[in-house]
Amino acid sequence: MKIAVIGGGSTYMPELMEGLLKHHNKMDLQEVYLLDLKDSTKFKTVAELCIRMVEKADNPFDLKYGYESADALTDADFIIQQYRPGLIEGRINDEKIPLKYSSIGQETTGAGGFACGLRGFPVVEKYIEAIRKWAKPNAKVINFTNPSGMISEFAVHYLEYENFYGLCNIPVNMIQGIAESFNTEREAVFLRYYGLNHMSWVDGVWVNGEDITSKALKEVYKPENIPESAEFEELAMEMQMILNPYLRYYYLTREMLKEEIESAAEKGTRGEQVRKIEKELVAKYSRKDLDKKPEELSQRGGSMYSTAAVELIRDLCNNDNRLHIINTKNNGAVENLPSDYVLEINTVVSKDAAKPVTIGNADKRTTGLIHTIKNFERLTIESYTQNSTTKAKQALMLHPLAPKGKELDEMIKDLLDSNSKLMKNVS
Amino acid sequence: MKIAVIGGGSTYMPELMEGLLKHHNKMDLQEVYLLDLKDSTKFKTVAELCIRMVEKADNPFDLKYGYESADALTDADFIIQQYRPGLIEGRINDEKIPLKYSSIGQETTGAGGFACGLRGFPVVEKYIEAIRKWAKPNAKVINFTNPSGMISEFAVHYLEYENFYGLCNIPVNMIQGIAESFNTEREAVFLRYYGLNHMSWVDGVWVNGEDITSKALKEVYKPENIPESAEFEELAMEMQMILNPYLRYYYLTREMLKEEIESAAEKGTRGEQVRKIEKELVAKYSRKDLDKKPEELSQRGGSMYSTAAVELIRDLCNNDNRLHIINTKNNGAVENLPSDYVLEINTVVSKDAAKPVTIGNADKRTTGLIHTIKNFERLTIESYTQNSTTKAKQALMLHPLAPKGKELDEMIKDLLDSNSKLMKNVS
Amino acid sequence: MKIAVIGGGSTYMPELMEGLLKHHNKMDLQEVYLLDLKDSTKFKTVAELCIRMVEKADNPFDLKYGYESADALTDADFIIQQYRPGLIEGRINDEKIPLKYSSIGQETTGAGGFACGLRGFPVVEKYIEAIRKWAKPNAKVINFTNPSGMISEFAVHYLEYENFYGLCNIPVNMIQGIAESFNTEREAVFLRYYGLNHMSWVDGVWVNGEDITSKALKEVYKPENIPESAEFEELAMEMQMILNPYLRYYYLTREMLKEEIESAAEKGTRGEQVRKIEKELVAKYSRKDLDKKPEELSQRGGSMYSTAAVELIRDLCNNDNRLHIINTKNNGAVENLPSDYVLEINTVVSKDAAKPVTIGNADKRTTGLIHTIKNFERLTIESYTQNSTTKAKQALMLHPLAPKGKELDEMIKDLLDSNSKLMKNVS
Amino acid sequence: MKIAVIGGGSTYMPELMEGLLKHHNKMDLQEVYLLDLKDSTKFKTVAELCIRMVEKADNPFDLKYGYESADALTDADFIIQQYRPGLIEGRINDEKIPLKYSSIGQETTGAGGFACGLRGFPVVEKYIEAIRKWAKPNAKVINFTNPSGMISEFAVHYLEYENFYGLCNIPVNMIQGIAESFNTEREAVFLRYYGLNHMSWVDGVWVNGEDITSKALKEVYKPENIPESAEFEELAMEMQMILNPYLRYYYLTREMLKEEIESAAEKGTRGEQVRKIEKELVAKYSRKDLDKKPEELSQRGGSMYSTAAVELIRDLCNNDNRLHIINTKNNGAVENLPSDYVLEINTVVSKDAAKPVTIGNADKRTTGLIHTIKNFERLTIESYTQNSTTKAKQALMLHPLAPKGKELDEMIKDLLDSNSKLMKNVS
Repeated sequence: MKIAVIGGGSTYMPELMEGLLKHHNKMDLQEVYLLDLKDSTKFKTVAELCIRMVEKADNPFDLKYGYESADALTDADFIIQQYRPGLIEGRINDEKIPLKYSSIGQETTGAGGFACGLRGFPVVEKYIEAIRKWAKPNAKVINFTNPSGMISEFAVHYLEYENFYGLCNIPVNMIQGIAESFNTEREAVFLRYYGLNHMSWVDGVWVNGEDITSKALKEVYKPENIPESAEFEELAMEMQMILNPYLRYYYLTREMLKEEIESAAEKGTRGEQVRKIEKELVAKYSRKDLDKKPEELSQRGGSMYSTAAVELIRDLCNNDNRLHIINTKNNGAVENLPSDYVLEINTVVSKDAAKPVTIGNADKRTTGLIHTIKNFERLTIESYTQNSTTKAKQALMLHPLAPKGKELDEMIKDLLDSNSKLMKNVS
Repeated sequence: MKIAVIGGGSTYMPELMEGLLKHHNKMDLQEVYLLDLKDSTKFKTVAELCIRMVEKADNPFDLKYGYESADALTDADFIIQQYRPGLIEGRINDEKIPLKYSSIGQETTGAGGFACGLRGFPVVEKYIEAIRKWAKPNAKVINFTNPSGMISEFAVHYLEYENFYGLCNIPVNMIQGIAESFNTEREAVFLRYYGLNHMSWVDGVWVNGEDITSKALKEVYKPENIPESAEFEELAMEMQMILNPYLRYYYLTREMLKEEIESAAEKGTRGEQVRKIEKELVAKYSRKDLDKKPEELSQRGGSMYSTAAVELIRDLCNNDNRLHIINTKNNGAVENLPSDYVLEINTVVSKDAAKPVTIGNADKRTTGLIHTIKNFERLTIESYTQNSTTKAKQALMLHPLAPKGKELDEMIKDLLDSNSKLMKNVS
Repeated sequence: MKIAVIGGGSTYMPELMEGLLKHHNKMDLQEVYLLDLKDSTKFKTVAELCIRMVEKADNPFDLKYGYESADALTDADFIIQQYRPGLIEGRINDEKIPLKYSSIGQETTGAGGFACGLRGFPVVEKYIEAIRKWAKPNAKVINFTNPSGMISEFAVHYLEYENFYGLCNIPVNMIQGIAESFNTEREAVFLRYYGLNHMSWVDGVWVNGEDITSKALKEVYKPENIPESAEFEELAMEMQMILNPYLRYYYLTREMLKEEIESAAEKGTRGEQVRKIEKELVAKYSRKDLDKKPEELSQRGGSMYSTAAVELIRDLCNNDNRLHIINTKNNGAVENLPSDYVLEINTVVSKDAAKPVTIGNADKRTTGLIHTIKNFERLTIESYTQNSTTKAKQALMLHPLAPKGKELDEMIKDLLDSNSKLMKNVS
Repeated sequence: MKIAVIGGGSTYMPELMEGLLKHHNKMDLQEVYLLDLKDSTKFKTVAELCIRMVEKADNPFDLKYGYESADALTDADFIIQQYRPGLIEGRINDEKIPLKYSSIGQETTGAGGFACGLRGFPVVEKYIEAIRKWAKPNAKVINFTNPSGMISEFAVHYLEYENFYGLCNIPVNMIQGIAESFNTEREAVFLRYYGLNHMSWVDGVWVNGEDITSKALKEVYKPENIPESAEFEELAMEMQMILNPYLRYYYLTREMLKEEIESAAEKGTRGEQVRKIEKELVAKYSRKDLDKKPEELSQRGGSMYSTAAVELIRDLCNNDNRLHIINTKNNGAVENLPSDYVLEINTVVSKDAAKPVTIGNADKRTTGLIHTIKNFERLTIESYTQNSTTKAKQALMLHPLAPKGKELDEMIKDLLDSNSKLMKNVS
C-alpha cells in the first residue's frame, strides 16, 4: 500500500506523518512518497523532519521524497493533495484584492475563492492526468487543496474523476466537540450535516440515538481564522442549526468586512500572519534534533486535519462502515438538491467506496444559497475550461460576497492580473 | 357572465373599464361589480366615472358598485383583485423604512415586499373565503394586488386556491415592444420567459419561428418607476438575456440604493409621487363631463395593465389557445425547478384552464436566486400563518436586498410596528 | 415551402394529397416531392394518380416524384415518413411468427413491434442522415412509419433529431368522436391524454371548459383492425378513463390472442387482408380517368391520418397555437415520468416548435406499464445500436405480450431470421 | 430493554429465542414478551419450550407470555410482528384459489399476495394503534408478517409509522452464501441490491472492495419453497444480475405455473406441506425434556430468519454502522425511483435509525416492474382503506401474474369470499 502526498512540503506535514505513524498497520501501509517543487528549500526541511520521525518509530514504512510525478504516483493507492498553487502570496492576494473593492477577502469563498480556484484548476487537471497514467486503477484522491469544495466539483463533475474526496477539518471538529461535551466518543454522534465546503448546516444532532439538537447548538467549532461573535451564536439559536463558522461571511457580512479591514490594517491579513508563522515553523523544523511534531504547529490552525485524512484512508482500507463527512457527489442523499452536485455530506466508508447516506430534504433556509454558490462554482470552472472572462463575471455576479457593477469589472481584472503574474512560473 | 372587481376604487379603474368595453362581447359579459371600502370618497368618484363610460357605450353590460362582498361576489365568474391593504401610506412605508437601514425600499421586493405581503395575507385570506362562499364553483381570480408573486404563492400553495392567476404588466409590455420592433403582432412573438414576479429572465426570443434572441436584448420594457441605466443594458448584452427591469435591484444594488436615497430626498419616493398623481387624477375623474379614460392616467404607470387582465379573461372564455405569461404553479414547465413553486411563466389559455407550457431547464445563472426568493416568500408567508417573528427574520436573512445583523432586527421591528398601525382599522 | 414524402408510393397517398390540396395556401406550399423505391410499380401508379389530382386542382403547387434522396430532400421544410421496411411481408411476419409461440402478433406492439422496429432503425438512421445533409436546417420530420412510438424514441433520443414528430391517427379520431357527440368542433375538446403510441390513456375530458369525462368514456375510437369488445368498454367505465383501443392487447390478452388465432385461420391476419385490399386499390388507382381519392381507400383504415399530418404541418407554419397530440420528448409535461421519455402527449404548436403542455402526474394505474414498455423500446433500440441478441432478449423479457423461457429464445431466433431475409435487399 | 413478539406462538419462535439468547447482552435485553391468541394451544406449547430454553441459559432476561396487547406492548422498545392473519388456512387459500384461474398461487405475490395483504391490513392497523398507545415513543417494529413488502408500504406510507422495518431472510442468505464462497465474513460483502420484497435484483457485488459481480452470479440463495431451475440460473448469467428466487414467478411464469399445478396435485401446496410440518413440530415442542431448538425446525424453511431480526435489533442498540437490507422508504437511495416508495434496500444502522445508503439509478430492466408492483400494492391498500372492490380489480389488472378479463372478476370474488370467512372471527 502506497500513499503519495502532492504538496509534501507543507508545514502541516509533520501532523499528517504523526497520524500515519499511528494508524499505518490498520492500512497495511508500505510506502509514503512526498512530492513537491524542486526549488523549495522548505520542502527539503519538512521532508527530512518527516524522515527523522519515521526513523524514530523504527521505520514501519518507507518514506521517500522527490520531484517527479512518475516517481511519486506510480502504483499509488492513495494520493493526498495539499498543494497551494500561487503559494502563500496567492492567498494574500485573495484576501487583499477584494478588500480594495469593499468586499470580503477570503481564500475559500467569495472573490478570493474564485481567484484561488482559477489558480488551482490547471494544476489539478495536470495531476489528475498523471494519476490516471501512473497510479493504481482505482486510486483514491484525498484533497485539501483550497477551495476544497470547488476543486472537488471540478475533479468529480468536469474531470470525471469520481474517486475524489474533498476533505475539511470542520466536520470532524464539530463531531469531536459534541462528543467531548456529551462525554462520549465520536462514533456515538450523528450530524444531519449538509451543504458545500465552508458553507454547511447541521439541523439535527443525535448522540447515542437521542436527538440532542437544541443542546448542541453552542458546540460550534471555532477555527482560529474566523473571529468569534456573540451575534453569530444567537443566530444559531434562532435558526436551531449548527452553523459552519464560515457562514458568518454570509449572515453578518457587513460586520465581518469591518473586522477584516481593521484586522488587515492592524496585524495583516490571515495569509500574512500565516506566512510569518510558517517561517518560524520551518526554522524550527530544520533543527536536526527535532524528531516529532513540534507544539507550535497547532498555532498554524488546521486542527484535526491529519485525523480527517488518516482516518478516511484507514476506513477505505477496512470494512468498518464508519461515517465520514466529505465532498462528494450528492447521488440522492439530499433529496431536494440535484443528484450531480458535489456536496459536503455524510458517507459510509468501506473498502469499495464512500457512499452518501440519505437524509431527506435540505431546509428551505439553505437551498437557495446552495444553488447560488454551486452555480457560482460551475460558472467559475467554465470560465477556466472555456477561457472566458464573461463567464468569470457571470460567476461573480451570483456571489453575494462580491461587489457589483463597475467595481466588479475592475476587481475581476485586478484578480486575473494578479493570478497571471503568480502562475507565470508554474508549468 | 359576471366580473367582480375588489378594489374597484383604484384610479386604474377607467383603463380596465375601457378594456372591458372593448372586449365584452368576446366574453359574453353581463355584469361588472365594483367593490371597495365604504368610507372612500375616491371610490365613489371612480365608480361614477365608470358608469358614465358604460353609459356612453350604450350600456353593453350592467355596471354596479357597492360595499358588501356578498353583493359583489355572488355568482361571479371572474374576480379581479387590485386592492392595496394599508393604502398608499403602506407603500410609502415600504419604501422609506428600509432606506433608514441602508437597504432597498420597494413595495414588491426586499424588505418592502416583505411588509407589503404581510399586510396583504389576511385580506387575501378573507376574500378567498368569501369567493369560495359566494362565487361560482370554478370562479377564477385575476390578481394585481402587490406583491403579486408572493400573494399568488400564498393563494395557490397555502390557501390551495388553484384558479388564481397572478398578473403583471411587464411580460405583455416586453412582447409588445418586440412585436413593434419587428413589425409584427404579439401573437408572432414567443419568449422563453421564467422566474418570479418582478424577478424574471428571457433567454430565448422567437419571432415567427425565427430565433432572434440576440437582436431583441435591447427591447427591454422600461417602466416609469425604475430609472434607466446604461450599465444594466450592458449586463443584458453580456448575459444574452432580456432582464426584467426589477433585476436592477439585484444586479446593481449599490447604484440603485444611491439613486433611491437621492431621489427620495429630492422628489419623494415613488409612493409619494404616486399619492400626488392620484390626488390630481381623482380631481379630474370627479368632473361630470368626463366620460372616458383621461390622458393623464398614463402618467400613473401600469402600461397595458388592462390589456393583460381583459385579454386573459377573454381567452379564458374561448378556445383560442393564446399564450399568457402568468404567476401559476410550475407543474413541470421549468424542469429543474420544483413543481409546486408558483412561477411567472407561459401558459396556454382556453376555457378549461391556463396550462403551463414546458420550456426545459432554467439557466444556472437564475436558479439560485429563484430558490432564494421563493423560500423568502414561503418563510414570509409562514411568519404570517404561524404568527412568528423568528420566521420573519429567517425570511429576510435570505433576502439579498435586506440588511443583516442588528440592523435587520431593528428594521423588522420598525416594519412590523408600522404595518400594525396601518392595519388597525382593517377588519 | 417544400414537403418531401418518403414512402410516397403508399396507397394512403391520395388521402394525404387530398389534405394538401385542401390546406396548401395556409402553409404557402410550393412543392411536394414523392420519394420511393425505383423497382416499385405501385409507386408509379400512386404518383400518377396524385399528379392527376393536382392537375385537376389547377396545379396549386408542383408535384414531383423520383428515387433519389438528394432530389427529394434538398431544401425540404417538412419530411413525411411513411415507408414500411420489409414491406407488407414484414408486417405479416410480425403477426404470424409470435402466434406460433402463443403470443400476440401485432406490428406495433409486443414481439411483432420489436421485429418491426428492428427493420426500421437502419432505414430511419439512413434517412435522418440524408435529411441532415440535404434538407433545410430546421427541417421537421412527420413520422408514420411503424412502430411510430419506438421509431420516435430512436430518432429523438438516440439520433438526437429533436424536430421529429411521431404521429398517429388515434388521438385525432378520439377528439373528433367526442366533438361530434357533443355537437361541437375539435378545438372545443381537451383531453388529458398521455402514454406511449398505441398505449395511452385519457383520464380527463373537457368540452368548452366543462369536465365531461364520465360522459365521454364510451366515445372510444374503434379502428377497423381491432375487434370491438363489450368487456373492454366495461373496463373503461370501471377505470373512468378513455382507453386507447390497443390497450385491449394488454388488458384482455387471452381473449385477444384467441381472437387473433381464430381470425388468422379464417380470413388471414390483418396484414394479409391489407395486402389484398392494397392490390385492389392499386388496380383502381391505375385507371387513368381516376383523378380523386377513391371511396374504397377508407376500407384500408387509417381514418383521419391525412388530417393529423396536414393540420400539424399547417399549424407549424402559423401562430395559431393549436394543440396536437404527438410523440415527442416529455420535457416535464407529465411530471412523474422521466423528462427524456418520448411520450404521446398534448403540445401547443406554432411556428417555432411544438411544445408539450403540462398536465401533472400520470395515474398510478398507468406508470408501471409506461416504464416497462419504454424500457422495452430502449433495450430494443440498444440491441440494434449494439448489435446484441442478449439485449434483444432482455427487451422482450420485459414485454407482457411476449412469451417467456425457451419459447422466447426460439421466437427471437425466428423473428431475427425472418427480418434478415426480408432486409437482405434493402441497402 | 424490552422486546414484544406479536405472533409469539409461531413455530419459528425457538429459532428467534436462540438468537436472542446469543446476542442479548449486546442489546442489554431485560424482557421478552410473547403475545398471541388465547385459544391457541400451539402458543402455549411454543411459549413453554421458550421458557425452558431461557431457563437452561440461566435466565439472562425475563420471558413472559400472554394475550393482552397492553401487557405485551407497554414500554416495549422493539416489537417483532410475525403473526399470520387467517392462519395457515389463509395461506392455503392464497395458493389454491388463483390456481383455479390458471394463475400463480403464492402468499406473497400475485393474487395470493393480494388476498394475504387484505387479511393483514386491519390487524396491522390495530397493532400499530396499540403500539402508539402503549410502547415507548420511538418503538421500532420489525416485521415478518406477509406479504412483508406490502405490509411495510401500508405501515410506513399509509399509517405513517416510520420506525417500521420490513424484514426478509433472502438478503442475508445471499450475503452469507457469497461470504462462504469467497471465504470471508458477511461484513466484507456489499451488494448493490434493490427492488421490492420478493422482487429484487443485485447488479453489483463487491467482496473486500473488489468487484466480483460476474463470479457471484451463481451464488443465488435457493429457498426450499421455490423449485430450482437451470433456465433461471442461465437468465441470471444473461442479465449479469443476481436474481431474487421469487423472480422465477415473473420471468418463467408458464413453467412455474405448470410446476405449481403438478406439485399441488402430487403433494399439496406449500402451505399444505407446512401445515403438516408444523403439526409435527408442535408435537415435538410439547416434550417437556426439550430445551433447545430442535433440528427439525430447519425443514420449516426460513433459514437465517432469526439472524436477520436479532442482528438488526442488536445493531439498532449500538453504533456499529452495520449495513442491513430492509424494507424502508427509498428517500433518494435509488435515484430514479420515487422517494416515497418503500423499497428493499441497503441501510446503515445505528442507534438513531436505519438510513438508506445511496446507490444511484436502478437498471432499466427493473424499473417498470418495480413501478407496476408498487402501484399494485398501493391500489390493494386503497381497496382496503376505501373498502372498494373496483380498486381491488384495478390493483390486480396491473399484476402480471393475475388472470385477466372475466376470470379476474371471478377470482376476485372467490378470494374476497374466502378471506371474509377466514377473518370473521378476528376482532
